[in-house]
Amino acid sequence: MSSKLLPEALITVIDELGKMPGVGARTAERYAYQLLRASQKSNHELAKAIDELHAGVKYCPKTFALIGMDEEVSSLYADTSRDKTTIAVVEEPLDIIALEKTGQYNGTYHVLGGAISPIDGIGPDQLHIRELLNRIKDDEVKEVIIATNASVEGESTALFLQKQVLDSNLDVKMSRLARGLPVGVDLEYADQITLGHALEGRRTLL
Amino acid sequence: MSSKLLPEALITVIDELGKMPGVGARTAERYAYQLLRASQKSNHELAKAIDELHAGVKYCPKTFALIGMDEEVSSLYADTSRDKTTIAVVEEPLDIIALEKTGQYNGTYHVLGGAISPIDGIGPDQLHIRELLNRIKDDEVKEVIIATNASVEGESTALFLQKQVLDSNLDVKMSRLARGLPVGVDLEYADQITLGHALEGRRTLL
Repeated sequence: MSSKLLPEALITVIDELGKMPGVGARTAERYAYQLLRASQKSNHELAKAIDELHAGVKYCPKTFALIGMDEEVSSLYADTSRDKTTIAVVEEPLDIIALEKTGQYNGTYHVLGGAISPIDGIGPDQLHIRELLNRIKDDEVKEVIIATNASVEGESTALFLQKQVLDSNLDVKMSRLARGLPVGVDLEYADQITLGHALEGRRTLL
Repeated sequence: MSSKLLPEALITVIDELGKMPGVGARTAERYAYQLLRASQKSNHELAKAIDELHAGVKYCPKTFALIGMDEEVSSLYADTSRDKTTIAVVEEPLDIIALEKTGQYNGTYHVLGGAISPIDGIGPDQLHIRELLNRIKDDEVKEVIIATNASVEGESTALFLQKQVLDSNLDVKMSRLARGLPVGVDLEYADQITLGHALEGRRTLL
């Protein structure tokens, strides 16, 4: 951005916003301009929240969900009404929110902290897999639901977990989220892999 | 967002980011999580930039472009190599950047600060129209290029400006940015209004 066209303070905001993944130059410009039109008070609150983010968040030592500094373990894990013998294994902390929104799950979670991806240099050792195996033993877990993403990395991670659990001689049921047609999609627009999964996982009606 | 699922510091960042126009709940969550993965140093720099934005930016009293606090008028307007007798009238300060990127314009700019929009309660008095008429006289302007958006509001504003200049008996040429097919668009996918403009504004070849 030419320093001739915009004031330095605005360029700085555009540059800093542009460092965020997924925020391109045009989006950063648009956001910065919106901040300029917002009040100094609301900008100050946003700035304060961003600045204090790290100091207010840590990982749960049991589930690796995000928790507040004053918490010992995730409040969901500590909740006695949740079934500790069922664990849904997710890649990222925000995946928990997506699953909770279904309102159909009463077990606990385990955040891996990513998925196995040799291209990005992420091997099994960087994920919280050992801790998962320990939890399966400690909490006498009956079912592990693998809820990694429906991507190549998510699939590899699911396979790896399956093998680890088998090798550890743990007496636990394992399942994987169903794959098939998402709601509202016309058959003719579905890609062949999704359609293949939908066929493979078809449910008997009669 | 349930406070049970995410730590307070993260919810605050999500809420603050979500107040920005165009940032939905999911986008705010994604940005907040990205900030969590970024370093405290880079978050602090972003926060500082946002907090200091207002104090570092003001409007040029001549062109209403954004300028630094240490500047008297826009450096583009002060640049003696720019033709002050040609003014491109734009709605918002960032429109200047878009036009400058073409590299085809050597005049100056005038930022209206929006477009006439009765629905949003924006009338001509809220825009810098009087200042434009004064500039046309003071700078002995020869051409005013109306570069408002190709929207209903942009069109109304263009018509209003045209009438104002006529009523003021100013001896100035006025033009409007051409409307027609954007680059790379197939005729069959162009909407009828765009195609209508393209026909109307067709250029003689032979």
